[in-house]
Amino acid sequence: MKSPLLLLALAACAPSEQTTASTTAPKSAAGGDLGSIMAARGLSDADVINAAKTYTPSGVHDEYVIFASGGHGGNMIAIGVPSMRILKYIAVFGPEPWQGYGFGGLSDKVLYQDGAQGGKEISWGDVHHPNLSETAGDYDGEFLFVNDKANARVAVIDLADLSTKQIVANPLVMSDHGGAFVTPNTEYVVETSQYAAPLGGGYAPLDSYNDTFRGAATFWKFNREAGRLDPAASWAIELPPYAQDLADSGKLVSDGWVFINSWNTERSAGTEGKGKPFTESGASQNDTDYLHVIDYKKAEALIAAGNFKMIAGMKVLPLEVAAKERVLSFIAEPKSPHGCDVTPDGTGIVVGGKLDTHATVFEFSKIKDQITKGECPSKDPYGVCVLDFQKSIRGQQQIGLGPLHTVFDNKGFAYTSVFLDSTVVKWDYNKLGGETEAISTQYNIGHILSAEGDTVSPDGHWVVAMNKMAQDRFTPVGPLLPQNFQLIDISGQNMSMVYDLPIPLGEPHYAQMIKADKLKTLQAYIPAGTNPYTDKVSEHAVAAGAERTERKGKKVDVYMSVIRSHFAPDFFEVEQGDEVTIHLTSLEQAYDQTHGFSIDMYNVNVSMEPGKYEEITFKADRSGVFPFYCTEFCSALHLEMMGYLLVKPKGS
Amino acid sequence: MKSPLLLLALAACAPSEQTTASTTAPKSAAGGDLGSIMAARGLSDADVINAAKTYTPSGVHDEYVIFASGGHGGNMIAIGVPSMRILKYIAVFGPEPWQGYGFGGLSDKVLYQDGAQGGKEISWGDVHHPNLSETAGDYDGEFLFVNDKANARVAVIDLADLSTKQIVANPLVMSDHGGAFVTPNTEYVVETSQYAAPLGGGYAPLDSYNDTFRGAATFWKFNREAGRLDPAASWAIELPPYAQDLADSGKLVSDGWVFINSWNTERSAGTEGKGKPFTESGASQNDTDYLHVIDYKKAEALIAAGNFKMIAGMKVLPLEVAAKERVLSFIAEPKSPHGCDVTPDGTGIVVGGKLDTHATVFEFSKIKDQITKGECPSKDPYGVCVLDFQKSIRGQQQIGLGPLHTVFDNKGFAYTSVFLDSTVVKWDYNKLGGETEAISTQYNIGHILSAEGDTVSPDGHWVVAMNKMAQDRFTPVGPLLPQNFQLIDISGQNMSMVYDLPIPLGEPHYAQMIKADKLKTLQAYIPAGTNPYTDKVSEHAVAAGAERTERKGKKVDVYMSVIRSHFAPDFFEVEQGDEVTIHLTSLEQAYDQTHGFSIDMYNVNVSMEPGKYEEITFKADRSGVFPFYCTEFCSALHLEMMGYLLVKPKGS
Repeated sequence: MKSPLLLLALAACAPSEQTTASTTAPKSAAGGDLGSIMAARGLSDADVINAAKTYTPSGVHDEYVIFASGGHGGNMIAIGVPSMRILKYIAVFGPEPWQGYGFGGLSDKVLYQDGAQGGKEISWGDVHHPNLSETAGDYDGEFLFVNDKANARVAVIDLADLSTKQIVANPLVMSDHGGAFVTPNTEYVVETSQYAAPLGGGYAPLDSYNDTFRGAATFWKFNREAGRLDPAASWAIELPPYAQDLADSGKLVSDGWVFINSWNTERSAGTEGKGKPFTESGASQNDTDYLHVIDYKKAEALIAAGNFKMIAGMKVLPLEVAAKERVLSFIAEPKSPHGCDVTPDGTGIVVGGKLDTHATVFEFSKIKDQITKGECPSKDPYGVCVLDFQKSIRGQQQIGLGPLHTVFDNKGFAYTSVFLDSTVVKWDYNKLGGETEAISTQYNIGHILSAEGDTVSPDGHWVVAMNKMAQDRFTPVGPLLPQNFQLIDISGQNMSMVYDLPIPLGEPHYAQMIKADKLKTLQAYIPAGTNPYTDKVSEHAVAAGAERTERKGKKVDVYMSVIRSHFAPDFFEVEQGDEVTIHLTSLEQAYDQTHGFSIDMYNVNVSMEPGKYEEITFKADRSGVFPFYCTEFCSALHLEMMGYLLVKPKGS
Repeated sequence: MKSPLLLLALAACAPSEQTTASTTAPKSAAGGDLGSIMAARGLSDADVINAAKTYTPSGVHDEYVIFASGGHGGNMIAIGVPSMRILKYIAVFGPEPWQGYGFGGLSDKVLYQDGAQGGKEISWGDVHHPNLSETAGDYDGEFLFVNDKANARVAVIDLADLSTKQIVANPLVMSDHGGAFVTPNTEYVVETSQYAAPLGGGYAPLDSYNDTFRGAATFWKFNREAGRLDPAASWAIELPPYAQDLADSGKLVSDGWVFINSWNTERSAGTEGKGKPFTESGASQNDTDYLHVIDYKKAEALIAAGNFKMIAGMKVLPLEVAAKERVLSFIAEPKSPHGCDVTPDGTGIVVGGKLDTHATVFEFSKIKDQITKGECPSKDPYGVCVLDFQKSIRGQQQIGLGPLHTVFDNKGFAYTSVFLDSTVVKWDYNKLGGETEAISTQYNIGHILSAEGDTVSPDGHWVVAMNKMAQDRFTPVGPLLPQNFQLIDISGQNMSMVYDLPIPLGEPHYAQMIKADKLKTLQAYIPAGTNPYTDKVSEHAVAAGAERTERKGKKVDVYMSVIRSHFAPDFFEVEQGDEVTIHLTSLEQAYDQTHGFSIDMYNVNVSMEPGKYEEITFKADRSGVFPFYCTEFCSALHLEMMGYLLVKPKGS
């Protein structure tokens, strides 16, 4: 049955079609028809249109999910589109107690051991560029890879349970940025460095920058069966200290190639305490920097043939070999650029000028042609061939002040974020120099994303401006403001701003948007006792009736079950100094039947999703009476779901 | 000018009023009128009404802000209403790197030292019941107080910068729940325990539960001028081990009194490893538990007169004195209740039956009268007088299965959350036994809030159901689901469900909703160099031009300025083993001009809001080359805003 509102609208705009229009404007149960609500709230027709494009009724699911990096929040953010509601924060590089991540349970190994750098425990990260796993250049919804700029690490998130399963620490570099980018069948997850330093850690004075400081492009091999990166099968290419920036993988015709831009061919190391210019100007002198063109298949073959040096346990293709073998070639790119985005058909590489007002589209076929022919018109100080700029490009597009990142739709258009102008500019990446359309953002867009936009087949319809400044957009919350994600409808004749979403925690740098139905998530860990890191039932899982406490000298093992609304056992006593391991099995199997387990005062806290196995080991170093209880509201008797750990003082 | 849509609606419903109706239905720039969008998205008229009630156009601010606890996320959540967008996550009991909280800066003292318990560093908390500061029983928008159930601590959040400024560790109890509740002029912040244990920590066997395990109601004195709790002026009342639950402060006629319910008068300690029943049934045997009625002014006077024992450095009014002096009295309340909510006029205390289907309204005047007259019909095992139930109540209201919490509107109605029935029930708390109205929630509402609902003057209009289960409401995100906040419009004849908001991080237990214009937030720290913990310019702040590095033996102090787009100095070299302190001053003063500062691999990270002074101290124990950089996107040359810390290896 057509709604009265729809009838009204149709009746008004097509007078020749006589329909039976309702004479009553729709009212809400709480009173007020649409018109009076609009008047009371000062909404325009366009506002109501935007509301109708995004409002998602109770129980209706979103069409897309955005996975956005949390920046120095160290986490990932999942957002539903078009509702623009944040669905989940995923803990990655830092402890997060609601998810029970990093507080004594199984996740500690991932977060603190695997994630350690130089022997130091690291408990945060600066997440920049998440990439969803791909199959044939399309998002497959299975995994998510993210980088940590501050501590050069890459994490693997399993999208079955939206949970971080592995962190690998890069042994070569101190900083990354261009990561984590995937090759079209996720053969590799690529991590490229930013701030140069001696490879493998280690000290060298700044005045040896040109000779000893380096970058690297690390190719982490992904084992999809295991769902883990395989450091032993991974390798890297040594790069000059040019502050590599963003990276992207080729696809289709350019599959097998990786592109990275850079912004510090000046090789500025800042003032060096000697009065040289700060990096902000020192690295901005040259009119161009270098787009790095990497033939990674060739690198892979050379490495396999033994052509590498070992640095800090990783196989590294030396820079001079990379240069000589044309694994690495350079092309000029203006000017301290940002953004390195391969077009959906793989034929072009779009680079945002940042300090230049153009976007440059490099033509892969032209690049490959020159390399195949061995063309090398000039070389950089490290012997890397620099190709001819004009011979390498499709062309340039005038964009505006501060072009950064580019994403794509399904109609041949590119959408570039323009930071200083604070706009998104839409342009045709096949017919360069044509008309463009700009829409203002509020304010100072940094990154940008589009629906399935980094794949071989973008969906169109939506673009999101990931703005860096929010100023007056939202109710004030003090000196530290949220970022502003603005949803843009690109489905019509012109771009249209639809919805502002404050990002309440973290600073996204990059995001990808996937069709929600590609995600195949678990509802529970089945069967009960499944270890989420092995996907197998743990040998220490316990069935109902088999709960017990075992003591061997100063080692106590508690085999505990968790089910509404009690822990069994709900009491155990140890001696001060004992080492205690609690093996927890959730016997629940129903969706959303999650418990928590935490011990007062012991900094121990895990989340017990239905069927999950968890394991906590701690030293009972403080004597006394310690309640433990269920932290996640689970039932009418949730508060009563508790027990006591008693720790007898030494010598008593 | 009236919108075409409005004209259409008006024209349709009031045919006698001839107005000039537009013949064109509103179109969006991106194409599609309202009707076609509704049809494409399957929206009903009611959905569009709901969308119009909540959609908030770009740049328009919310009318209210909800402050909700993050539960075992250990943080606080600020949500705008009616847009239902999360505006900010505030770090409280655990480290959070986006806000630079707990990673080497000034916040470390608050989080790790002040927040330590029993000599242990605690890095998470289970936040339950936030309370906004009050003046004359109304929210004044200045401070926010929250409790940590797992580690018995209370935090003070300054609403000028939405930042945690103090954590106090309760020295008496191991667990709290009824906290943090404020008295009507925020004289005290009240924290009441939950799981009993010997006061002051310390070991005692479970079979001494009745004799040695206790609860406590702690009255933390608040110094508004300083913006801090004053532990030296604080005190507590010893309570029996009845698992005190929720608390509320009296107001107006009941100002000076505090009410706490309880659910374990059975004094069950679970199985005790001896086959006794689990707490879930052991604590559910009795038909009633005890509502605790506390005359805190009397307690305050007794303490001031020296009538206390010192336990773990806190003044405690002994239980026997509290009983004898009628500081503490009990009244039966059915049955393992939850929710203890004083009515806006202060005359009634509403208790949710939880395992009983009624809400009971206790009448303060009747209670006070009996106590004043010295009535003591019976006593509990600890000598506390138990008042007559019928003589103490206004009456009971049949609610449903699992009534928990109650909030109020401005028309004399109460709204109770009913967990098992999964409803909100609206009823008249002055005319008990009358008609009620119920609305279904999705699913299993736990807590509930209303606009300004805990004050002497609720605003009405909105209620939010804080549901514990979400199941099918949102796009699936794995076995750990978000909670579901449902916005309910109570302004009309009937309650109406308006909007579902997933809570993507944390588990709220309680929230308060304040008129947004009561919040007076800072835009920047002015003047530059202000220490946000002292609100004064730090003696170590640096002005432009005065930046320097000073060395005294193995101690290095770096006085660094932060401004677009460089750090000065951007280079310093130390020796392995040196202790380094970096004094950072943001010289920015413009709104939203925030930087970050972090050192790769050193787990150091602070947020530099405009004008802020920060201080980081660390030991340079790892040698090598360590880039430091700006983590918060700040300018076109953000990536170039970096420098180098060099740590020379020992003996080199």
